[in-house]
Amino acid sequence: MRKLIGKELAEAIRTQTAAEVAAGPRPRLAVVVATGDEASLWYVRSIAKAAAGVGIAADIVDLGPAARPEQIRESLVRLSADTGVHGLMLQTPLPPGASAQELAGAIDPRKDVDGASPLSLGRLAAGLPAFVPATAAAVMALLDHHGVELAGRRAVVVGRSAVVGKPLAHLLLDRHATVTVCHSRTRDLASVTATADVLVAAVGRAGLIGAGHVAPGAVVVDVGTNPTGDGGLTGDVDAAAVSARAGALTPVPGGVGPVTTALLLRHTARAANLP
Amino acid sequence: MRKLIGKELAEAIRTQTAAEVAAGPRPRLAVVVATGDEASLWYVRSIAKAAAGVGIAADIVDLGPAARPEQIRESLVRLSADTGVHGLMLQTPLPPGASAQELAGAIDPRKDVDGASPLSLGRLAAGLPAFVPATAAAVMALLDHHGVELAGRRAVVVGRSAVVGKPLAHLLLDRHATVTVCHSRTRDLASVTATADVLVAAVGRAGLIGAGHVAPGAVVVDVGTNPTGDGGLTGDVDAAAVSARAGALTPVPGGVGPVTTALLLRHTARAANLP
Repeated sequence: MRKLIGKELAEAIRTQTAAEVAAGPRPRLAVVVATGDEASLWYVRSIAKAAAGVGIAADIVDLGPAARPEQIRESLVRLSADTGVHGLMLQTPLPPGASAQELAGAIDPRKDVDGASPLSLGRLAAGLPAFVPATAAAVMALLDHHGVELAGRRAVVVGRSAVVGKPLAHLLLDRHATVTVCHSRTRDLASVTATADVLVAAVGRAGLIGAGHVAPGAVVVDVGTNPTGDGGLTGDVDAAAVSARAGALTPVPGGVGPVTTALLLRHTARAANLP
Repeated sequence: MRKLIGKELAEAIRTQTAAEVAAGPRPRLAVVVATGDEASLWYVRSIAKAAAGVGIAADIVDLGPAARPEQIRESLVRLSADTGVHGLMLQTPLPPGASAQELAGAIDPRKDVDGASPLSLGRLAAGLPAFVPATAAAVMALLDHHGVELAGRRAVVVGRSAVVGKPLAHLLLDRHATVTVCHSRTRDLASVTATADVLVAAVGRAGLIGAGHVAPGAVVVDVGTNPTGDGGLTGDVDAAAVSARAGALTPVPGGVGPVTTALLLRHTARAANLP
């Protein structure tokens, strides 16, 4: 079985992005945070560190876990209007009562480097130019990097979130795959996922996808990043079981994750160079 | 086999809409047209006539088949700003070089009664309130009217347009169906469509779906409206062949079509009553 590793691709994207950044004024990314969740805070700090590595300034705008939705919206409106900020993200989770989908509408689509606003999602669905959610874009980039063909093939996406599953379904359709979206209410999940030439798991449930869910030789992409007891990460795919059956599998960590962060930086550099 | 007729539901929607309209100021729908296509012009006139029937004023803004994209955009911007207009539609086809998806972005989302703008599509995909494309909404209304269960069932949509196939996929996902989208590049279409409990054909190719595409007892919805040589309409489904196998089928004409027009009027009445 092939391991679809993300490291080499992520490095290539970062190198290219660093060159783009060096050629112009310094891009700035602002990340709005309103959580005490340690894993999210760690992730945001890792983005800021990666940004610094390619010459992008990153501001973490921490509103604290008690922020009200109006405060978050005001912050997004202010940063959208700030000409010194080129990329703008809203980190989840948010405090109870705050809807990420609704609030992301306050992000200027030209700064929406993680494709979170409904307008970005709609432009993607309509086949118009838009920033694509970095995780969904990373899945496509990883498949392309490893030469996985999509046209005419069966793709099954497990998970229907507006940040991964749905945009990914549109991206796979654009590439002429026949696309099925499954979710928690799907009956006999294994019988559906076993029809996939390309199977993407994006649910957030460790070990959900076992050997019985995978057709022999299928390409399996694991978007899950579930914390393990020992401070590590594990995916939605039972890698040990699936390895014996799949044709290819992305590792967790080291598969989709590093490419996602690299694409977020590329998007920020591109946002800084929009006419 | 049950015939899923749209007439009764369309009448009920029109009656309810007429009552809503009678209770307030007269709603006005503007339809921008830039084509010489006779079938489209006939359709637009039929909308205007149906609008009159429920007390809605309808203006056909005919820019002619030689209209430039900028002219169409200006017209949409002007009508979006016109407080006397509550609903606004852009009829297709458009002149060569004009993109319906791109131009529809100029429609105020609060007047976008046919859910054509990328923002409306994105809000639908993100699970936020939005006007839904009338045809996609009509499919769902017809399924509900005839008591077709969706949660946990397999739905297959043939057609990936931004006006029918894609919004419908989102609506079916919201109702907890497991959704597959097929298209012209799908390999062995019949093997995919035959897995459907609910099969929707929205391609625009007469007779595409035959008996071999349909599982015994499946519910089949025919969105196709293909002109016949004698001035009539025929669907994407070979009704004679499929009738012997399907559990239920929408007729063409008389299925999805009348419900679509009725919902367009309901959306216009609702747009006029937005706070």
